Amino acid sequence: MNEIKLLEKILPDLKQDKNVFLGPGDDCAALDLGTGDLLLAAVDQLISSVHYDRSTTVPRVVGAKLLKRNLSDIAAMGGKASWALLALATNTADDKYLLEFYDGLREAAEKFDISLCGGDFSSLPKGETGEVASLTILGIVERDLMCCRSGAQVGDIVFVTGALGNSYESGRHLTFEPRLAEGRFLATGAYVNAMIDISDGLLIDAQRLAKASEAAVMLELGHIPVNADATLKQALGDGEDYELLFCVPADKAEILRKEWAFETALTSIGEIRANPPGEVTAPDGEDLSKRFKKGYEH
Amino acid sequence: MNEIKLLEKILPDLKQDKNVFLGPGDDCAALDLGTGDLLLAAVDQLISSVHYDRSTTVPRVVGAKLLKRNLSDIAAMGGKASWALLALATNTADDKYLLEFYDGLREAAEKFDISLCGGDFSSLPKGETGEVASLTILGIVERDLMCCRSGAQVGDIVFVTGALGNSYESGRHLTFEPRLAEGRFLATGAYVNAMIDISDGLLIDAQRLAKASEAAVMLELGHIPVNADATLKQALGDGEDYELLFCVPADKAEILRKEWAFETALTSIGEIRANPPGEVTAPDGEDLSKRFKKGYEH
Repeated sequence: MNEIKLLEKILPDLKQDKNVFLGPGDDCAALDLGTGDLLLAAVDQLISSVHYDRSTTVPRVVGAKLLKRNLSDIAAMGGKASWALLALATNTADDKYLLEFYDGLREAAEKFDISLCGGDFSSLPKGETGEVASLTILGIVERDLMCCRSGAQVGDIVFVTGALGNSYESGRHLTFEPRLAEGRFLATGAYVNAMIDISDGLLIDAQRLAKASEAAVMLELGHIPVNADATLKQALGDGEDYELLFCVPADKAEILRKEWAFETALTSIGEIRANPPGEVTAPDGEDLSKRFKKGYEH
Repeated sequence: MNEIKLLEKILPDLKQDKNVFLGPGDDCAALDLGTGDLLLAAVDQLISSVHYDRSTTVPRVVGAKLLKRNLSDIAAMGGKASWALLALATNTADDKYLLEFYDGLREAAEKFDISLCGGDFSSLPKGETGEVASLTILGIVERDLMCCRSGAQVGDIVFVTGALGNSYESGRHLTFEPRLAEGRFLATGAYVNAMIDISDGLLIDAQRLAKASEAAVMLELGHIPVNADATLKQALGDGEDYELLFCVPADKAEILRKEWAFETALTSIGEIRANPPGEVTAPDGEDLSKRFKKGYEH
């Protein structure tokens, strides 16, 4: 059973109290604190020999990435990140490696003003090398500003930040900047009907947004910002870009372009259509998930 | 470098924002939400072949324990637990095992009214079996009711819930009940100057409370409630009891005994003294950590 099937089996059975404003299935859960604001919470793992090659990756950037990929989840909700908790399992006797990992995490925390306020440290079973790290990120968002995957409306313009593709091979999956400031700007300006971060690839994450919004994401392939060292296929299929994908009402798109003061590129790549709900299509309606699954390279 | 040395090296460098009311070093961090209440947060791991034997432990109780040991941390702060996030890394193709693990976690969550509101699921490196699970627990406590390890006052009576020792061999480390109701009763009744849960053993955890409170914990060995299948040495040294150890002003101790309506045993086992600060002693002042480290069995 893969993750998706497992979650399909588990999630419907999980009872959520009324103090859960938004449960599993978005970039963060949103918890009702009984005040005007919501608490955002998400957890993500980084595992050596699964998510990075320990022999070629310096521990400092691994520690930083662990935090940054979680910050990207807060960014996608339009929230402010504040606190993090770390769980680390390792047998390494290499103190230098461990301390560098922590230094990377600590430096990233300081840069983004995150308090690393709790943690747990354990051994792995005897003979197992490497490390299993998980980080829980906590943040705050105003109830009326929160951006979810659902909420895209027919006619919305679909935007993406930055450029996409070849993140893993190029090392950008380690050096990327989470789009916290951009996400917060989009939320506080009330520009956005729906938002998601691109962690598993544009096509997959666009489809998640489409499914959550019960609408179609139409992409104009020629408009997609592709990294100089990547192909269009990589821009569509590769994960780990950590850019934001979001939907803006047509009458706000021009204002957004004018007000966008970030160095980060802002590109419109399509629009929201009614049909087919839950799918990602080309302008002529062709199912792009199907086309690129078949290995067809545009 | 072991966990304690590593943390000694790392923790002083971690900057905590002013919105962190209580940082690393207690059972939970307490985060200032800008309202009257504090958010409690803690993370703990359960790892097969480290914390339990996968061949003899049914996955249902492992899932339940993962939540319960975190609930014990909320109990020790006097808080109300509300939300949990799970990170699970495993290669198991044994769907039945995984689903039973989740069932155990889900059933415990329902029993204690916890919403499992987020998670992450990953593979382990190829060839590695078993699972690495971490759970983050979130709860709420009123600022003026929170119970910390610090705060014990000279003359306080030291109490413990339940009975101690031989938790691992007996299987009680899996079947224990977190003392949430008891902890909450103690907090709301303002009975407690300091509290901690006994996860690493009475002597170790009493010393943590002593150090945080800059006072001595005097224990009367003859008063310690020892499980029927355990020795006094086990009651002092074994971990995984998940009972509460707490300090009550002498003038409240009698009221507490009267008002205590739980089936859980309540036993006074000593008192707080001024000297030697940070130590656990017998009535004659003997250093108990030293005596029992030497393997002397009373």
